[in-house]
Amino acid sequence: LRPMFDASVVPLLHREFPLTAPFVCRTLRTTGLGESAVQEKVKVALDALVTAGLGVGYCARVGQVDVRLTASNGNAAGLVREAEAIVQRTLGPQIYGFDDETPEAVIVRLLAQQKKTLALAESCTGGGLANHITNVSGASAVFLGGFVTYSNAAKEKFLGVRAETLAAHGAVSEAVAREMAEGARRQLGADFALALTGIAGPGGGSPEKPVGTVFIALAGDFETVVERRLNAYERTGFKGLTAQQALEMLRVRLV
Amino acid sequence: LRPMFDASVVPLLHREFPLTAPFVCRTLRTTGLGESAVQEKVKVALDALVTAGLGVGYCARVGQVDVRLTASNGNAAGLVREAEAIVQRTLGPQIYGFDDETPEAVIVRLLAQQKKTLALAESCTGGGLANHITNVSGASAVFLGGFVTYSNAAKEKFLGVRAETLAAHGAVSEAVAREMAEGARRQLGADFALALTGIAGPGGGSPEKPVGTVFIALAGDFETVVERRLNAYERTGFKGLTAQQALEMLRVRLV
Repeated sequence: LRPMFDASVVPLLHREFPLTAPFVCRTLRTTGLGESAVQEKVKVALDALVTAGLGVGYCARVGQVDVRLTASNGNAAGLVREAEAIVQRTLGPQIYGFDDETPEAVIVRLLAQQKKTLALAESCTGGGLANHITNVSGASAVFLGGFVTYSNAAKEKFLGVRAETLAAHGAVSEAVAREMAEGARRQLGADFALALTGIAGPGGGSPEKPVGTVFIALAGDFETVVERRLNAYERTGFKGLTAQQALEMLRVRLV
Repeated sequence: LRPMFDASVVPLLHREFPLTAPFVCRTLRTTGLGESAVQEKVKVALDALVTAGLGVGYCARVGQVDVRLTASNGNAAGLVREAEAIVQRTLGPQIYGFDDETPEAVIVRLLAQQKKTLALAESCTGGGLANHITNVSGASAVFLGGFVTYSNAAKEKFLGVRAETLAAHGAVSEAVAREMAEGARRQLGADFALALTGIAGPGGGSPEKPVGTVFIALAGDFETVVERRLNAYERTGFKGLTAQQALEMLRVRLV
């Protein structure tokens, strides 16, 4: 349907409803803040431009909020440019991409530009992060491969996670996440490796590590960093959000 | 939103719009046939029941078609039961599940019932099949792990695919699919292993192996079977359909 829409419906709409004024649209894609926090940060600064004809829309996705700036009057391009500068100033570190670019497409682009490669070691996301990355055309140039290691035995055998580490800290721990990332990087000879281990639920939680607990590790030519998050969503929401957070850890390193 | 809908909206609807007759609904989920082929096979036989008050709906998904049978008159249960028997008789081998059960949930259930385990080796699907399977709660009991081996080096190192096989047949070939499946099964000590290697596109096609070509292998305690398919869809459609076909190869073995 999509090719039919682009090839036939869009030209038909343009013919039947010609634009009377230029239409300018720019989407800034953010991560790390909720929809209301994003709105709060930019609303006051943008209000004067709204009076002048700027349209501002917000679209919340799992772990992401898009800010969409539009205008269609005589000064449309100038209005949108001015609004974009405000959003950049306010939300700069949170902006990961523009217009239609997904987080995984940003990562593939940044890695390709810097001629770097990536390996993955996934436990709780079960291949979900690899699936995101390989949805991007051209991923094969930067993504060397990944391991989905659900069992402890697989973590030991393929990633070199030590039995003592598993016994002392449990599979869902900072120490195991670190060894998974370093093992995947070493095994595949990659510049970077991301590792994810957590409790997707519905079972398996404990008071110290409730369902939704996840450790995300990033290994590279620096000391491995590990973040702990609590993503208390149902299973697919948990997997999606965790994958986004891992991509964001890497993006921050690459920019 | 979903828990809110189930906990609050559904009871409200039941209260405000009480059922005046029993409502019976049964969904039979098929794979391997297109929507029009499914309709053609069951339409004539079901027509008499439609006159008596049976509702028949079709829902096409990637690689799947659902047949939904409903009735809400005095004989609703009998009508739906009779219709289900007709569909079972006509489409039996194509029916993989019922009501809300996904193909991956069927596989996890069948493997758990038979106390069997599964390993994966994915190239072109890039973790998409592992992602489907690990969306099922309880998957960890039957899914040991998987490899996402985009590069030839990773196929050799982790799956034991031979360099000569890669050189003689190419990475997208029946021979490599077979060695990937057997390697994943051996490496993870699983009862079954599925392997997928193909050309997701948009680049990489040739006259002998156009974009969309894929080889799916299933290894177990029998001679490894390999199927060749042509799934000429865009990238995510290709990955989704290929994953369904792999699940179906295993399902047929398990029933």
